[in-house]
Amino acid sequence: MNKRPFESISWTEDNTLLLLDQKQIPHKIVYIECDSVTDVFDCIVDMTVRGAPAIGIAAAYGVALASIEAKQSGKNIIQECFEAIDYLSKSRPTAVNLFWALNKMKSFLQNLKQSSKADETIQELIAQAHIIYNEDIQTNILIAKHGLEVVPQNANFIHHCNTGSLATADYGTALGIIRYAHEHGKNVHVYLDETRPRFQGLSLSAFEMKSFNVPYTVIVDGASGFVMKRKKVDLCVVGCDRVCANGDTANKIGTYNLAIAAKAHNIPFYVACPISSIDLNCESGDSIEIEERNAKEITESFGQLIGPEGANVFNPAFDITPSELITGFITEKGIFTSIKAILTFIL
Amino acid sequence: MNKRPFESISWTEDNTLLLLDQKQIPHKIVYIECDSVTDVFDCIVDMTVRGAPAIGIAAAYGVALASIEAKQSGKNIIQECFEAIDYLSKSRPTAVNLFWALNKMKSFLQNLKQSSKADETIQELIAQAHIIYNEDIQTNILIAKHGLEVVPQNANFIHHCNTGSLATADYGTALGIIRYAHEHGKNVHVYLDETRPRFQGLSLSAFEMKSFNVPYTVIVDGASGFVMKRKKVDLCVVGCDRVCANGDTANKIGTYNLAIAAKAHNIPFYVACPISSIDLNCESGDSIEIEERNAKEITESFGQLIGPEGANVFNPAFDITPSELITGFITEKGIFTSIKAILTFIL
Repeated sequence: MNKRPFESISWTEDNTLLLLDQKQIPHKIVYIECDSVTDVFDCIVDMTVRGAPAIGIAAAYGVALASIEAKQSGKNIIQECFEAIDYLSKSRPTAVNLFWALNKMKSFLQNLKQSSKADETIQELIAQAHIIYNEDIQTNILIAKHGLEVVPQNANFIHHCNTGSLATADYGTALGIIRYAHEHGKNVHVYLDETRPRFQGLSLSAFEMKSFNVPYTVIVDGASGFVMKRKKVDLCVVGCDRVCANGDTANKIGTYNLAIAAKAHNIPFYVACPISSIDLNCESGDSIEIEERNAKEITESFGQLIGPEGANVFNPAFDITPSELITGFITEKGIFTSIKAILTFIL
Repeated sequence: MNKRPFESISWTEDNTLLLLDQKQIPHKIVYIECDSVTDVFDCIVDMTVRGAPAIGIAAAYGVALASIEAKQSGKNIIQECFEAIDYLSKSRPTAVNLFWALNKMKSFLQNLKQSSKADETIQELIAQAHIIYNEDIQTNILIAKHGLEVVPQNANFIHHCNTGSLATADYGTALGIIRYAHEHGKNVHVYLDETRPRFQGLSLSAFEMKSFNVPYTVIVDGASGFVMKRKKVDLCVVGCDRVCANGDTANKIGTYNLAIAAKAHNIPFYVACPISSIDLNCESGDSIEIEERNAKEITESFGQLIGPEGANVFNPAFDITPSELITGFITEKGIFTSIKAILTFIL
C-alpha cells in the first residue's frame, strides 16, 4: 500500500477527533477538530465527513467524545453515552454502517462493569472506536483482494460517487478494488461519474485517483450509457449505504440509472459491500427510508444561484438498485451473487 | 398563447439581430446585438443562442447580416453569403437544423436573379430568414397540438434539457407540448432533468415553466430512474438535434440514459421532432459526429474549479438514442412510430 497522502479520520493523543473536511477537497486538505458529540453530529450532517463506513467510524469516536464530555461536566458517563448514541443515530438515516457502529458501541457499554472508573471507561470506549476503525481498513483490503477475481487484465470501469480512502478509514470499497488492481499489475482505467448534486466523483474520486496515479476520466452522470455504447467498458463497481435481505441496495442517487444502463449493455454491475452494510431487518428496498436533502444542493453552486429563485426541487440523496440488476456483491468474505449465498457461507 | 415574457431571437428595424443571452437566464434577460456573421458564429459556439431550431434561425439571419456587411465593404454579396454559409456551418456539427436552415438560404441565393440590386437582395434575404422564423413557430404549435393525443388528463412528464421558447423561435418542441397541454385544460406536472453539464433544465426549462405557470420539479439527471420507480410518471418527452433515417436520435447528453430508464419502467418515450430534424443522409446513429466540448464545462462552475486541477474529462455534448427505445415521433404532421411512417405519410 502506498503512503497515505491524507487521512479521512484520525484520533489525536490529546483525545481530539480530526475529520478531513471533504467539502474542501480537492482544493485544500483541512482537518476539522471535533471535541464534542455535537461537533461530530454537525460534521456528519453537513458532510464534512461522508461515505457510509467513514460516518460509522466518526460516530463511534463521537461516543468516545461524549464520555470525555460527561466526565468533564461531572455527569453519568454511561447515560450520556447512550444519549449520544440516540442523538448521533439521527444524523443521517440511510447508511446502515452508522447504526452498525453505534450498536457496537452500545453493546460494549451494556457489557461494561458497573464498577469501572471514569478514565478506564473513556479509554475503553476510545479503544473500541479504534477497533472499528482498524477493522474497516482490513475489511477494505479483503474486499479489494477478492475483487481482483473479476477484474480483467485490461480493465475499464465505471464508478459512481466516492467510495475510496475518503469514504472509509482507508483504502475504500469500490475504489479500493480499482486502486488495488492498479497496484497489482492490472491495466486499469476508470470513468468516474461526477455524481450530482454534490460532485463526489469529480471532486473526491478524481482527487483520489490522481493521488494514487490511477488513470481516470470524469463524465457527467447522464453520459454513462453513451460511454458504454461507444467506448469499451468492462464492469461497473459501486459502493452501498445499505443492502437489504433480498439484495436491493441503497446507494448514492444515480446508482440505479447506472445499473439500468449496465444491464441494457450486458455489462457486469458489482456492489462492493462490507458485510456490515447488510441490514437483514430490511426486507426489500421499498422499506428503506430515503433521505431528502436541501434543494440548494441542486440549485446553487458555490453560493451562486443556477436555477430561478425558489425553484421546486426533489433532491433524494440515495436510490435503490434492485437485486436483479446486481451481478455480484464483493465482500470481505468473497464474491456472492445473493445475500442468501453470503449468509450460507458465513453460517 | 400567453404574451411572451421574452424573445429568444428578434430582428430590429435597423437590421440588427438580437439574441437573448441564454447563459444569463434565469438571472437576467439580456439581449446580445449581432451586426456581423462572426457575431452570430460566436453566439452559436459559446451557446448564447442554443437549441437546434434556434441555432438554425440565428444562422439564417447571420446570412442576411453577411449580405449587409458585403454591401458596406463593397464586396460581392452573393459570394460573401456563400462564404458565410460555409463558415456558419462549422459552428456546431450535431444539430441538423443548422444545415437545413443554411441550405434554405443557399437554395434561395442560387435562384436569385443575377440582375438583383444589392438592397433588394438584402431585403429578400431578411425576408427569407423571417419565413424560417415564422415557420418554426407554426411547426411548434402543430407539434404541440398533435402531442395532446398522448397526454393523459393528469399527466406527469419527465423532460431533458431545454426545448422551449428559448430553444426555438417560440413555443418550443417537447416543452411546447407540455405548455400547450397545460394551457388546454390538462393537469400537467413535469420533472425537469437539470441536464449537466450546462444545466439547461435547471436554468432554462425551470425559468420557462415558472414563466408560464406550469408546475415543475427539478431533479438531477441520475434521479430519473428513482422518480419513475417511486413517483407516478406517465411519459417522457424530449427534443432532438438530428434524427437518422432509421429513427436513431441525437439529442443532449443524458437523453439515452433517460430512454433506457423509461424502457425499464415501461414508460412511453416520445421525441418531439420537427420534420426538418430528420436527416435521411444519416443512415443510423453510428454515423453521427458527436461534438466534444471543453472540459471546463464539467470541471468549473461560475469560474470556480470543482475537480482537481487538470482533471481528465470526456465531455460529449450529445448522445444517440436508438430507435427501438422511442415510442413515437411527435411531428407537425402527426405522431408516427417510425421515420418510414413519416415519409409514407408525406409522400
